[in-house]
Amino acid sequence: MKDEACIFCKIAGGEIPSATLYEDEDFRVILDLGPASKGHALILPKEHYADLCALDDKIASKALGLAARIGAAMKKSLDCDGFNLVQNNGRAAGQTVFHFHIHVIPRYEGGPDIVSWTPGNASGEELAQLAETIKTAL
Amino acid sequence: MKDEACIFCKIAGGEIPSATLYEDEDFRVILDLGPASKGHALILPKEHYADLCALDDKIASKALGLAARIGAAMKKSLDCDGFNLVQNNGRAAGQTVFHFHIHVIPRYEGGPDIVSWTPGNASGEELAQLAETIKTAL
Repeated sequence: MKDEACIFCKIAGGEIPSATLYEDEDFRVILDLGPASKGHALILPKEHYADLCALDDKIASKALGLAARIGAAMKKSLDCDGFNLVQNNGRAAGQTVFHFHIHVIPRYEGGPDIVSWTPGNASGEELAQLAETIKTAL
Repeated sequence: MKDEACIFCKIAGGEIPSATLYEDEDFRVILDLGPASKGHALILPKEHYADLCALDDKIASKALGLAARIGAAMKKSLDCDGFNLVQNNGRAAGQTVFHFHIHVIPRYEGGPDIVSWTPGNASGEELAQLAETIKTAL
């Protein structure tokens, strides 16, 4: 299903033009207009899913393999030294367009540190308890 | 195949204990010892794959669905406001353990901005050219 108000539906469907580097029946892969690094791409399903939890099984089963293929092509063609996948769910997680997408971000030695955190501390007991808490909802 | 020198092989195989919140024949999901936020989990395949590009099709087709399930359970059980998936490939991308893994990071309103970048600029022409460059390697 498409969402008439969704800009990524329009881009994925070809209604709004984009720098497309890959397209098949389920996905369009485009370059981000505000790239974090040279070659920053977005994997968009053509159907509308608000986020990862809304994804159907078929798209979920294909998206990661496609990301691998895009990342490998970046390594061959862009001379990058690695790449990140980033996928945000919810406003608190930095999601700004509520149409599932995966960022594929080429990384170059000496480039900005776009994905980073200060490792926290947690005791083994705290972690064991937390694992039990999450398990209850699985 | 296992890699005898790989700590994530030992953890995924149960040789080194961990706060495990999920396990099946292909994966173990554990809590990170240095969490970026409360509930920060790692999805580990039991077999050894250095990174996304080395993953076999079966694992690639299952991992994202599992991440969705873990993220949904976090939202239910931890009262988090969203979550990120982060998956790093190569030292330049912040990968420190060379056994494929997906970070599932719960995000809480007002928490630290662990995944962020300053959007860059690129002209439509530059992007179109770059898309052609990556296409050559697909």
